[in-house]
Amino acid sequence: MASPRVLVVAGTHGNEINAPWLLDQWQQHPDLLDACGLEVVAVIGNPAAREQGRRYLDRDLNRSFRPDLLAVAAAGTSAVDREMARAHSLVNQYGPEAPESCEVALDLHSTTAAMGSSLVVYGRRPADLALAAAVQQRLGVPVYLHEADQAQQGFLVERWPCGLVLEIGPVPQMVLDPRIVERTRLTLDACLTVLAEARDGRLTPPAELVVHRHLGSIDLPRDAEGRPEACLHPARQGRDWQPLTEGDPIFLKADGSVIRYDGPSGRVPVFINEAAYGEKGIALSLTERERWPLERSAPEVLTALLRGL
Amino acid sequence: MASPRVLVVAGTHGNEINAPWLLDQWQQHPDLLDACGLEVVAVIGNPAAREQGRRYLDRDLNRSFRPDLLAVAAAGTSAVDREMARAHSLVNQYGPEAPESCEVALDLHSTTAAMGSSLVVYGRRPADLALAAAVQQRLGVPVYLHEADQAQQGFLVERWPCGLVLEIGPVPQMVLDPRIVERTRLTLDACLTVLAEARDGRLTPPAELVVHRHLGSIDLPRDAEGRPEACLHPARQGRDWQPLTEGDPIFLKADGSVIRYDGPSGRVPVFINEAAYGEKGIALSLTERERWPLERSAPEVLTALLRGL
Repeated sequence: MASPRVLVVAGTHGNEINAPWLLDQWQQHPDLLDACGLEVVAVIGNPAAREQGRRYLDRDLNRSFRPDLLAVAAAGTSAVDREMARAHSLVNQYGPEAPESCEVALDLHSTTAAMGSSLVVYGRRPADLALAAAVQQRLGVPVYLHEADQAQQGFLVERWPCGLVLEIGPVPQMVLDPRIVERTRLTLDACLTVLAEARDGRLTPPAELVVHRHLGSIDLPRDAEGRPEACLHPARQGRDWQPLTEGDPIFLKADGSVIRYDGPSGRVPVFINEAAYGEKGIALSLTERERWPLERSAPEVLTALLRGL
Repeated sequence: MASPRVLVVAGTHGNEINAPWLLDQWQQHPDLLDACGLEVVAVIGNPAAREQGRRYLDRDLNRSFRPDLLAVAAAGTSAVDREMARAHSLVNQYGPEAPESCEVALDLHSTTAAMGSSLVVYGRRPADLALAAAVQQRLGVPVYLHEADQAQQGFLVERWPCGLVLEIGPVPQMVLDPRIVERTRLTLDACLTVLAEARDGRLTPPAELVVHRHLGSIDLPRDAEGRPEACLHPARQGRDWQPLTEGDPIFLKADGSVIRYDGPSGRVPVFINEAAYGEKGIALSLTERERWPLERSAPEVLTALLRGL
């Protein structure tokens, strides 16, 4: 039986430099991380953007894995920009139908928001949830479940049969911070350990997991020309994963007046004041914290996938 | 007597978004800052880079005010890139020989490094030092004196008869943070107050000021291909303005080994792990903290300049 192949992507956004450095160092110092016998394929997601220290060149690579964009890229018309071409190339080389196919994709990101060490899953695929549940059991990390947002589609890991995003922060873009590198290393290490357990048929994830289910996003208040009329309130900065209560200060205007949160209490904000999301019109996203039973068959689905069954 | 004209520049780097927001809000809420009867000319330094959320497009605008580059830009040859053209245009419109000439330039920046609220002066011009000394007396802010670095030349404020840079941090690039906006506002307010006092001939700066005189910079250790072999040591992160002692941990390798500072004790690091300086090969700059007497005539030089004498 061939080893399962795990695609580990760093630098999907060219200005997130900690994970690429970790993979670079891992190559030079193989003891840094135990691949547990898995065949790890480490790639830089967007080398051209990394070269320029930019998130992307033409469009966000991690929104470029939509089937319609991949189809355009495959057709090779003049409408294909650099990220569309790169997304197509990654799927073509490492996707499930490719000669060098990988069963799982782990996509390593950093945030300027205080996301801590966290996982993102897209949709409700049993293999993803089994992996996330087992990593959560091991490390206690929060899981953000992203789904049903028409404005945010086309994430890399969706094109692999199983995949997670690791989001580690806070760290400014373009800053190498050993604390972020170490948290990335620990979270990746846990993912690889869990995948190896699943490969060996000895994965016993918990019966349930806690997810933060995406509900939607809130933008800064803006004037008629689209310029922000207020900042995030300083009392909210850095408080990702902490539930909001109705009436909490949420935005602050230059004249000192406070805009308060008027939604239902208990919703949990994430990606608060994320640098990369200003252009997407997201000041923060709101989630519902839920305890979900893990389907009994989910670990076996992951095992079967890793065994190529 | 015409009012002295003060050029206030924000967004000289297009991904530093707090000062531009402050100027925007000031325009809409004139009470936000007291111009003290000065004629403030507020401009966005690099609007094209701001539009793209990038520090610059072709070259760092705040290194593009070298006389040789300005001469090339004035000649208008094909060698003129976007920042060279922009530097020339700003000097041509607001420089000391221009029809809309300004006597003073204040250039508002932010840092990912923990620079707090701080001032930078370039060289030892008496008017700059009088202004910096009086602001330091008022707010207690540290002053970084940048000079004699062949690798770093061509700063905007050098082209005006008097000028300071305000550096406020830490804040990630592209993050709007009301604490940073407020510190920028307070520091700019102090500059304007001091300039108005000087205009009125009632400036009494202290007899001396504390400067941090630039000595040079240290890069991360790098391998033969230029890739970093170590990070800044976490014990050093965020400790700008705190003197180094020989033997202090300064860099950390992925294998956990520590590289120690082997220079003389007492030197004061600034711009520690600044995101924008990785590409310049600067992990931190070293300064000598010195107490300088202020020339007796310095306040009068500033007053004469502001009165157009």
